[in-house]
Amino acid sequence: DNLMKGLDQMVMGRPSSRKLLDDEKNRVAIHETGHALVAQHLFDLKRTNTRPTRMTIIPHSKGSLGMTLIEPIDDKVLTTQGEYESQLAILFGGRIAEELILGNISDGASDDLQRIYRLARQMTLGLGMSTTDQLNIVQVESTDIRHGTVWNNMMDTSVQKHVKDAEKQARSILETKPLKEIADILLIEQTISGQRLTNLLANKMI
Amino acid sequence: DNLMKGLDQMVMGRPSSRKLLDDEKNRVAIHETGHALVAQHLFDLKRTNTRPTRMTIIPHSKGSLGMTLIEPIDDKVLTTQGEYESQLAILFGGRIAEELILGNISDGASDDLQRIYRLARQMTLGLGMSTTDQLNIVQVESTDIRHGTVWNNMMDTSVQKHVKDAEKQARSILETKPLKEIADILLIEQTISGQRLTNLLANKMI
Amino acid sequence: DNLMKGLDQMVMGRPSSRKLLDDEKNRVAIHETGHALVAQHLFDLKRTNTRPTRMTIIPHSKGSLGMTLIEPIDDKVLTTQGEYESQLAILFGGRIAEELILGNISDGASDDLQRIYRLARQMTLGLGMSTTDQLNIVQVESTDIRHGTVWNNMMDTSVQKHVKDAEKQARSILETKPLKEIADILLIEQTISGQRLTNLLANKMI
Amino acid sequence: DNLMKGLDQMVMGRPSSRKLLDDEKNRVAIHETGHALVAQHLFDLKRTNTRPTRMTIIPHSKGSLGMTLIEPIDDKVLTTQGEYESQLAILFGGRIAEELILGNISDGASDDLQRIYRLARQMTLGLGMSTTDQLNIVQVESTDIRHGTVWNNMMDTSVQKHVKDAEKQARSILETKPLKEIADILLIEQTISGQRLTNLLANKMI
Amino acid sequence: DNLMKGLDQMVMGRPSSRKLLDDEKNRVAIHETGHALVAQHLFDLKRTNTRPTRMTIIPHSKGSLGMTLIEPIDDKVLTTQGEYESQLAILFGGRIAEELILGNISDGASDDLQRIYRLARQMTLGLGMSTTDQLNIVQVESTDIRHGTVWNNMMDTSVQKHVKDAEKQARSILETKPLKEIADILLIEQTISGQRLTNLLANKMI
Amino acid sequence: DNLMKGLDQMVMGRPSSRKLLDDEKNRVAIHETGHALVAQHLFDLKRTNTRPTRMTIIPHSKGSLGMTLIEPIDDKVLTTQGEYESQLAILFGGRIAEELILGNISDGASDDLQRIYRLARQMTLGLGMSTTDQLNIVQVESTDIRHGTVWNNMMDTSVQKHVKDAEKQARSILETKPLKEIADILLIEQTISGQRLTNLLANKMI
Repeated sequence: DNLMKGLDQMVMGRPSSRKLLDDEKNRVAIHETGHALVAQHLFDLKRTNTRPTRMTIIPHSKGSLGMTLIEPIDDKVLTTQGEYESQLAILFGGRIAEELILGNISDGASDDLQRIYRLARQMTLGLGMSTTDQLNIVQVESTDIRHGTVWNNMMDTSVQKHVKDAEKQARSILETKPLKEIADILLIEQTISGQRLTNLLANKMI
Repeated sequence: DNLMKGLDQMVMGRPSSRKLLDDEKNRVAIHETGHALVAQHLFDLKRTNTRPTRMTIIPHSKGSLGMTLIEPIDDKVLTTQGEYESQLAILFGGRIAEELILGNISDGASDDLQRIYRLARQMTLGLGMSTTDQLNIVQVESTDIRHGTVWNNMMDTSVQKHVKDAEKQARSILETKPLKEIADILLIEQTISGQRLTNLLANKMI
Repeated sequence: DNLMKGLDQMVMGRPSSRKLLDDEKNRVAIHETGHALVAQHLFDLKRTNTRPTRMTIIPHSKGSLGMTLIEPIDDKVLTTQGEYESQLAILFGGRIAEELILGNISDGASDDLQRIYRLARQMTLGLGMSTTDQLNIVQVESTDIRHGTVWNNMMDTSVQKHVKDAEKQARSILETKPLKEIADILLIEQTISGQRLTNLLANKMI
Repeated sequence: DNLMKGLDQMVMGRPSSRKLLDDEKNRVAIHETGHALVAQHLFDLKRTNTRPTRMTIIPHSKGSLGMTLIEPIDDKVLTTQGEYESQLAILFGGRIAEELILGNISDGASDDLQRIYRLARQMTLGLGMSTTDQLNIVQVESTDIRHGTVWNNMMDTSVQKHVKDAEKQARSILETKPLKEIADILLIEQTISGQRLTNLLANKMI
Repeated sequence: DNLMKGLDQMVMGRPSSRKLLDDEKNRVAIHETGHALVAQHLFDLKRTNTRPTRMTIIPHSKGSLGMTLIEPIDDKVLTTQGEYESQLAILFGGRIAEELILGNISDGASDDLQRIYRLARQMTLGLGMSTTDQLNIVQVESTDIRHGTVWNNMMDTSVQKHVKDAEKQARSILETKPLKEIADILLIEQTISGQRLTNLLANKMI
Repeated sequence: DNLMKGLDQMVMGRPSSRKLLDDEKNRVAIHETGHALVAQHLFDLKRTNTRPTRMTIIPHSKGSLGMTLIEPIDDKVLTTQGEYESQLAILFGGRIAEELILGNISDGASDDLQRIYRLARQMTLGLGMSTTDQLNIVQVESTDIRHGTVWNNMMDTSVQKHVKDAEKQARSILETKPLKEIADILLIEQTISGQRLTNLLANKMI
């Protein structure tokens, strides 16, 4: 017999539709702009071969509320450590933008965060791109290998440093960009192409 | 051969019906009022977009003894960290109310507690809303990832802080509210609508 | 090839019947009386809503050697922390009685001990009734959640304290009761009703 | 491709029959006498209700090389902590006898050792007969319960103490008994009944 | 219901073809040359019985972008510890070459790294070629054996030292070789035979 | 999508036949002689009841490159701790011989090492032949028993000591034997019987 008796039901109702409120449209616009501005900046610095080609706040059929498309300018096969670090920073761009403009964070970045974590872990464990002592930590993630506590703690430290570095980079980039201004335009125009983004930035809106 | 011999049976009889005693009706009324008053207060402060719309101590078919219905006022899709923290406090409202008025706690809150724990854990692990060092702890809960002892302890600490903060918030709200008075009315009227609750509070019963 | 060679067989014969010896009848009577006296005492103090209604040393078909029936006086659905603590003490009553009167303990209490452990663990882990820091340790026992060493040690400490407290309570109650006298009567009468127990205690046998 | 190349085969031949050598017959006789003398001694002290009823060095069909039969003198159902401790000492009797007379130990005691370990563990974990702090360590061995490091170390310590105490007891008993003399008789007579053992001891062979 | 709501999709486009860019052709040439030069050097020192027989930057059907073929000069069956250490260094040659000439590392070495890790682990765990205390750490990797924390940490340390030593060896070899010059020739000629490599090195291009 | 892209294939060719080189024939002869000389020595000291009866460097059909046959001189069923320790030393004889004569070790001993590890572990865990505190560590290796860190470390220490002691014993025996001389004869004669080995040693070749 189960002791877990539920005294009551505290029901939290949920909305049936997924139509966005104005506040939310605004948050999505800021979030997408965050991704795009970090991506454009790192592309300009040649620290990634991908550039933002489209930002939109028109919801998709798959359930997402917006989208930023980042496309490679050439057909590269290999990726350097610096390019991986740029990817981490671009993924952080959305959340940092929310925080900088709205002063709070939402659960809308959870997908981004999972990708950040998995990528940072893979850099450390599978690609030999550890932050603690380059090249020396090389491992295959495998459930049949048991490591000691020292090793496991070192792995976590390395992954956390990747995450923290990327978050700092995204923040320092966005603090110098016309984040609010571009997001406002995106809110009106619904979709902005990569070319239009370049033009807006070139007009020195800042 | 099993050494575990049972010398005796100490049988604890169990009641066959689930008809509530007066004492229990009273406890349920207090519990529901606790949820509702925390929810109303945080809604008034705009720290959540949900409000209590119905409290009842009429048992449900599903086996619960009462219910508080908390409904969103609009169709929000995204939820901020502050709103999650409000949810935790609302979930704690029932148990804290029991403790404040009756001086003891019951197993009636076990469902609430499980939801609190799971939500606080998800904030830390999946949503990047850690209490220890915001944004830097990002992880996917996964059985194929082994963390070090430092990491695991840090996770527990973060989750515990979410839980403790929410419990403090619920208590500090309920200590200033006419908890006993509203619960007494609920005991008589069996069901109270959100509008009726607002009226009762507006009449300065306190 | 298996290195584990058995040099010999040291066969410990086992009795075929389960007919109780006199010594054992006596132990069972003491054990049941222990349960019943703790239960009656805590009921008199209103620290539980259950009372002992029957004690017997007539073996059951299920293989147990005796039985104490503890029944609720009303149809309660919710259980308070204090009532759970009383349950733990009542469960300990049998073993403590054996120890106090016979000076040693037997494996007859193994069922009781398992129930004590499981209940104390559930109080800590599922019901928010921890001994270490009330309310803050709320958790769902789940194999897919990995905790740190600090947390796991804290859990064990909380559970052990529940067990120890209950054992102390049972002992301090039984030390003031006519345990031997009632057990002797039970040995003769084979079965004692709750009413008869009340009468015996009321006659100030002590 | 497997790196584990076997350079060579170091084949250790094994005898085909299981016919005992004289040396081994002697060891078996000593081993059985060890069990029996500890058992008889603890029975005489009334610290167990079992007594040795037969010792033999005639091999069984099951593959064991000898046997000591220990039988209860009555149909007891319950077993006290003291009786469990006697069982542990009796199980140790065989190995200690080998060590005392032959000066070395063999793998013939592996079955005894496993039973000792399992019994000592069950006393600690399932029967509340811990050596560390009686009654307070009560647990169900279960793979779905994770304990902290402190707890696990405490369990091991308790079990080890049971084992060590039993080994000491067996040794101190056998050091005062005519172990060699009785084993020599067993070697000649092949089988000794419990009655014959009592007679031999009563004749003050020592 | 899953709290993990994806606010947006940050899509990172991927190129459809696997046609190498010029930059990448260059990196592959450097990488293959790194393997080959370490292999040739260790062969010349008689620290391995394998030599590089072909390097190519013509992509394979299996999806790899280049290849270095290392072949044994005789049909050896047994491999010494020194030869295993040479294999580790040869495997590291590709990545170290990228780092020395291009100043950064790519994910192209992930296969090499996995082989390095697995081989270093096998040396420690299965072949008795530990770096911590030769011969004394002998173990079968098995999921049914649980080791203590000290042991697990010692294993990790031994494996890490193998990896670090091999990385140092590869670097110190390549720092004295005409790495850039040979890679440029490979870029032009697409494929270089072992004989051609020997000739190029003999002509004192350095 | 998998990030693990293989930049290249570093193919290490493998020989197709398993025909031994002269160097390898020599190593096998040394290895077998190592086993046999340790075995003969310990037999002469009566510390084992097995003796070497045949050494050969003619490859078997099973894939091994040589063989030493060690046979019992009688049909013993029981094995003492001293005899187990002799087995460990004999198993180490092959590798130590390689190291003493050739100055390096090969992977040819991996089978021996696995047997050494498993045997040393079984002595500690199943046979009560621990090196740390004889008799007190008795355990059944079982995946359903969780031990504390102290225990697990103690197990590893005990097993390691068995391994280290055996390695020392094998080395100190072989350092006084005509290892090279007998191996040279084995290389020529291909097979040496136990009798021939005794004769060679008796002729005081040393």
